[in-house]
Amino acid sequence: MTRNATIDPAARVRDLPPPCIILCEPQLGENIGTAARAMANFGLRDLRLVNPRDGWPSEKARAAASRADHVIEAVQVFDSVEAAIADLGFVFATTARSREIAKPVRGPDEAAVTTTRLGASGTRTGYLFGRERWGLNNDEVALADEIVTLPVDPDFASLNIAQAVLVCAYEWRLKANDGALPFRLDEEQNPPASKEDLVRLFEHLEGALDAVNFFRPVEKRPSTVRNLRNILQKASLTDQEVKTLRGVVAALEGRSTRPRG
Amino acid sequence: MTRNATIDPAARVRDLPPPCIILCEPQLGENIGTAARAMANFGLRDLRLVNPRDGWPSEKARAAASRADHVIEAVQVFDSVEAAIADLGFVFATTARSREIAKPVRGPDEAAVTTTRLGASGTRTGYLFGRERWGLNNDEVALADEIVTLPVDPDFASLNIAQAVLVCAYEWRLKANDGALPFRLDEEQNPPASKEDLVRLFEHLEGALDAVNFFRPVEKRPSTVRNLRNILQKASLTDQEVKTLRGVVAALEGRSTRPRG
Repeated sequence: MTRNATIDPAARVRDLPPPCIILCEPQLGENIGTAARAMANFGLRDLRLVNPRDGWPSEKARAAASRADHVIEAVQVFDSVEAAIADLGFVFATTARSREIAKPVRGPDEAAVTTTRLGASGTRTGYLFGRERWGLNNDEVALADEIVTLPVDPDFASLNIAQAVLVCAYEWRLKANDGALPFRLDEEQNPPASKEDLVRLFEHLEGALDAVNFFRPVEKRPSTVRNLRNILQKASLTDQEVKTLRGVVAALEGRSTRPRG
Repeated sequence: MTRNATIDPAARVRDLPPPCIILCEPQLGENIGTAARAMANFGLRDLRLVNPRDGWPSEKARAAASRADHVIEAVQVFDSVEAAIADLGFVFATTARSREIAKPVRGPDEAAVTTTRLGASGTRTGYLFGRERWGLNNDEVALADEIVTLPVDPDFASLNIAQAVLVCAYEWRLKANDGALPFRLDEEQNPPASKEDLVRLFEHLEGALDAVNFFRPVEKRPSTVRNLRNILQKASLTDQEVKTLRGVVAALEGRSTRPRG
C-alpha cells in the first residue's frame, strides 16, 4: 500500500517507548529484514539479534527491510539472550508450543496491554523470538516473565517469524494509540445532510413518482413512501449526495438538473 | 514456530464462515503464497485472484505458501472484481491512502466485528486488496461497502500485502474465537498452592532466618517478615513450586532436602 496523503495527527503515537524485539539466533537475513519492516510499520525501532547465523550486517536483511533503514542501522548484536535483555524490565517469550512451564500464557493483545502500561511508567519491555526452525529453548523461556502465543488455527500453526513480530507490533500500536488510524472519513468535508434537505429530497422523489402514477394502488402509497424513505435513510447521505440525488430525480423528471431551492 | 502439542479445543473456531480474501491484479506469486499462508494461520480458506499478472497456477505461490496447499488448491481466478465479489454480501476495500470518498473507514479490528457478525447470520463477506504498487483504484473502492486501513505509523505506512492480509485474518479469528489461544497455562497441572502450604513455607523460611539471626534489629522483624511474605505472594506460587522452595530452604539450613510434612 502507498504512503498516506493527509495524516490524522492522532495516528502519531503519543510519546510512549515501544517495546524492543529480540531475535534469538535468526537463520535467514530475509526474516531479519521483514521483521524490521514489520516493526517500522507499527512504530517499533529497537531490534536486537542474538548470534545471527549468517553474521551482521546482512545485505539480505537490508534489502528485505525495504527502506526500514532506521531499524536496520540501529540493530544491536549480542552473544547471549541474557545480555540482549539486560536493560529490560519485563520480557515476553513468544512460543507456538505448549510447555511444561508454570508461566502465564498471553495473547498478543493481552501482552500489548502490559507493554503499553509498563512503557507509560518508564519500564523497558521486549518480545523474545526464537529460531525459525524450533523457536526458543526452555532455558531462554525461563528468562522471560510471561509467554506470548498467537491465536492461530491449531491445524496450521506454523507462522513466519516476521509475521509473528508483525502481530505483536500491531497490537502494541493498537493499544498505545487507541487504534487511531492514519485517516478516517472526514466528517467535516462530508457533513451528513440536514434532515430538512433530506425531507426535501423525499418529497421531490415522491412528487416525481406521483407524476408518473408510481403509487398504485393508492392506498399502498403511505407504506411505499415509508419504505423509500427508510432506504434513503440507510445510506446516511451527505450534503453533497443529497444534491446529487436531487439532480438525478430532476433529470428523470425530464427537467433541468439544477435541484430546486 | 512449531506445531503445538496439546491443543485447547476452544482454539478451534466455532462453525463460523470466514471472510474471503480477494487480491486484485497481484504482481508477485510470492505475495500470493505468503498471503495464502497468512490466511491458513488464522483459519481463512477462500482466496480469489483477479487477473494475476503472471497467471495461475503459480509455482512461486505454492512454494511461498509453505504447506497452505488447501488454500492454494482452492484459489479461484476471475477477470473482474465485480465477478470476484458477486456472491458476497459485504465487502471491505483495503487502502493505505485517504481518498475523497464518503465511505466509512474502519480498522481491522472494527472490520472483524462486522465480518464475524455478518458471518454468524449467514452473509458471506470479503476483504479486497489492491496491487502491490498502487493498491486499488477508486472504481474498485466504489464496489465496496466500507474501507479498511491499518493503524500503521504514518511515516512508514508501506505494508507488504501478505502482512496486511495477516492482520485482517488475525483480527477476524480474534473476534470469531474470543481470542482463544492454542494453549494456556494449565491451571489443573499447575494448581496454585493452598494458603496453608504457603504459610508453612513462610514460617519455614522465617524460622531458618531466625536461626542465623537474620532479623536485626529484632524490632524490624515484623516489617521484614511482611516484605518477604509479599515477595513470595507476588510469585503466585504453585503447589510444586512451594515444595521446591521448601527444599531450597531446608538445603540452606544444612538439613535433609526433603520438605517437612
